[in-house]
Amino acid sequence: MQNYLSSERQDRVYLDYNATTPHAACLKNQWTSWLSIYGNPSSIHQDSRWPKTLIREARQKIARHLNCSPLEIIFNSGASEGNNSVLKSVWATFGKNRPEMLISQVEHPSVVKTAEYLTTQGAIIHWIPVNRSGQIDLNFIDQHLSDKTSLVSVMFANNETGTIFPIQQISQKAHAHGAFMHSDCVQILGKHDIQFTELQLDYATFSAHKFYSLKGTGFVYVKKTSSWIPLIHGGGQERGRRGGTENVLGIAVLHTVLDLLPEASIRIEQMKKLRDSMESRILSCLSDVSVTAIESERLGNTSSLVIAGVDGETLLMSLDLKGFSVSTGAACSSGNPEPSPVLLAMGLTRNEAQSSLRVSLGWETTEEQIVDFVNTLAEVVQKLRQLHINEKVENVSEKSK
Amino acid sequence: MQNYLSSERQDRVYLDYNATTPHAACLKNQWTSWLSIYGNPSSIHQDSRWPKTLIREARQKIARHLNCSPLEIIFNSGASEGNNSVLKSVWATFGKNRPEMLISQVEHPSVVKTAEYLTTQGAIIHWIPVNRSGQIDLNFIDQHLSDKTSLVSVMFANNETGTIFPIQQISQKAHAHGAFMHSDCVQILGKHDIQFTELQLDYATFSAHKFYSLKGTGFVYVKKTSSWIPLIHGGGQERGRRGGTENVLGIAVLHTVLDLLPEASIRIEQMKKLRDSMESRILSCLSDVSVTAIESERLGNTSSLVIAGVDGETLLMSLDLKGFSVSTGAACSSGNPEPSPVLLAMGLTRNEAQSSLRVSLGWETTEEQIVDFVNTLAEVVQKLRQLHINEKVENVSEKSK
Repeated sequence: MQNYLSSERQDRVYLDYNATTPHAACLKNQWTSWLSIYGNPSSIHQDSRWPKTLIREARQKIARHLNCSPLEIIFNSGASEGNNSVLKSVWATFGKNRPEMLISQVEHPSVVKTAEYLTTQGAIIHWIPVNRSGQIDLNFIDQHLSDKTSLVSVMFANNETGTIFPIQQISQKAHAHGAFMHSDCVQILGKHDIQFTELQLDYATFSAHKFYSLKGTGFVYVKKTSSWIPLIHGGGQERGRRGGTENVLGIAVLHTVLDLLPEASIRIEQMKKLRDSMESRILSCLSDVSVTAIESERLGNTSSLVIAGVDGETLLMSLDLKGFSVSTGAACSSGNPEPSPVLLAMGLTRNEAQSSLRVSLGWETTEEQIVDFVNTLAEVVQKLRQLHINEKVENVSEKSK
Repeated sequence: MQNYLSSERQDRVYLDYNATTPHAACLKNQWTSWLSIYGNPSSIHQDSRWPKTLIREARQKIARHLNCSPLEIIFNSGASEGNNSVLKSVWATFGKNRPEMLISQVEHPSVVKTAEYLTTQGAIIHWIPVNRSGQIDLNFIDQHLSDKTSLVSVMFANNETGTIFPIQQISQKAHAHGAFMHSDCVQILGKHDIQFTELQLDYATFSAHKFYSLKGTGFVYVKKTSSWIPLIHGGGQERGRRGGTENVLGIAVLHTVLDLLPEASIRIEQMKKLRDSMESRILSCLSDVSVTAIESERLGNTSSLVIAGVDGETLLMSLDLKGFSVSTGAACSSGNPEPSPVLLAMGLTRNEAQSSLRVSLGWETTEEQIVDFVNTLAEVVQKLRQLHINEKVENVSEKSK
């Protein structure tokens, strides 16, 4: 199969595709032509035509993929801006007339922190629990939905565990109470096959850099019937719905990379097989390891492991030194000594959450890389566990002195 | 002198540098290496180190240029986001305790529309008038500043006329009443030499694409003592002050292009000479032309002309067909049939505003281009004026039939 991605370093194995993806190889030869597209798309002279056309075509391509109208796509700087825009727009529209929102406990920080901010303005957030398998509490949603609810926000798939939520079902519940339904869909493109319209969303947020494109570009789907108050007021860009000169290069790159979508089904299948074989290998060669939410429907590329007796951060760094890039949770909270709020919300203990490792595969991941990774993981884990035992023994003998 | 800019099309003359600039030539050979920088800067494995370093170095470079602390620089998607962030942050901080803001009548739409939006939330905006020469009414500021004022916002230089405002003086007035001072500084980089700290600003907004870099990147200067509530809540990026995975490529490009700053003084002088000679030539070869705000201190690259007897939009399109890119006003309001609000605020009549043309020069503009432009402008204006006279004659004879 053709090699799509250019930028993986050959001396390393990248297994952190949920944090961000390498850039598609097809971008390599386009730089010079893109550098000459510099006009402001809002100008009316010839230098504006090429950027303007690129933006229009990218918008149409996304609309065809999602089976929506191009007018329902608003380009922005990424999913964090998108999530802020949706929550704040709904709050600005309804305010205290419908002050309640239902939001899952396992959302991205750009949803959680925005919701927390809105509570300082008077919003009431009902945090929807998930169980140990990552499944969302539908009864809780039924119990808390009312004519006071303006928005329900549940991500399509969790970025840490890969758990997929029953969005269509939740949308129907939200709509039955006149509430809008939003889903953070950043983990969909290239990772899961869906019929977008079946989700029945009013708002959906996407990010380019999770699909082999550039950081700093994203878009939000805003259904024609959804209310919208811009987060960024300004010029007439995006029909007055998002001010600011468009990120033309970011949109041009996404435009090009979206041409890879017809390959997605095959790639998704391939990632899933590799992920499943990786999990089987790990479970068979290492004791006291569990795969979080293995019993649930998950993204085929994601594996969240609890490896007893090792500290996740130490494990990550040991693997890093050996050339493997993985993560302990969301990239956005990396470096934070607190255990993952997502895993805690699922009911894992602090110890379990701190012994967690996220491995996320991409279109370029090969069987050879996975075999190599599992062997290294086993070796490193055994070493760390041994160190841990030695430390305990030393402590005991220290105390008995 | 070395040719810095790559992307001007050789068959056209670009004179719309205030709308956006071509990309610096030094970017040409860096694409391949930048494509391999794809890690998420928030990750903690090796793939994150290069992007993280680039962001840190770019921040330090900006801080050195502005003579401020790197901690006072927050990267974002551009000046529209920056302007929204500042105004909304100040409103969110003070709200009805200090509900008044003083804002000039000639600000960019991302300031004007944001302020208009804030009035729906309870803010009171005092719009500071400017006179026919583009000079701001300092008495108005004195009369309206009070302990109810949270913010004064006046751009460094107007994007349409180039008029430069006495920011330091206005900052001192604002501070005397305990108000914060903000300035939209997008037209400074590469167009005017300043000692940034002398402006005594609390907030300043900048955009990369006005300085030979990419669209979709900008930064805001937020003084240590200024309040800040994020516009985009989310992960810990930018020390929790702006959520969202950073636009690594946009920041890397800006990082590179900032190395051209030592050349700025020479380039600024060169643009000014060319602009002045252009204005002299135009005034000597065309009757009934005036240069708006010619008597005021202006950016050396900007010329706003009122050319009696021609419609600005028609003139723009005629020049476009002959290979010259100019504008009638701000790019963000291009295509809008209404005359420029900036020119109307200055006291120009609708007729005058609709007969306006903005010509803005850049580092690459040559004397040959300017001579060529003036000759073409004279030719086109004479033709349009003749057409206009013929139409009038026809109308008169039509009526007398």
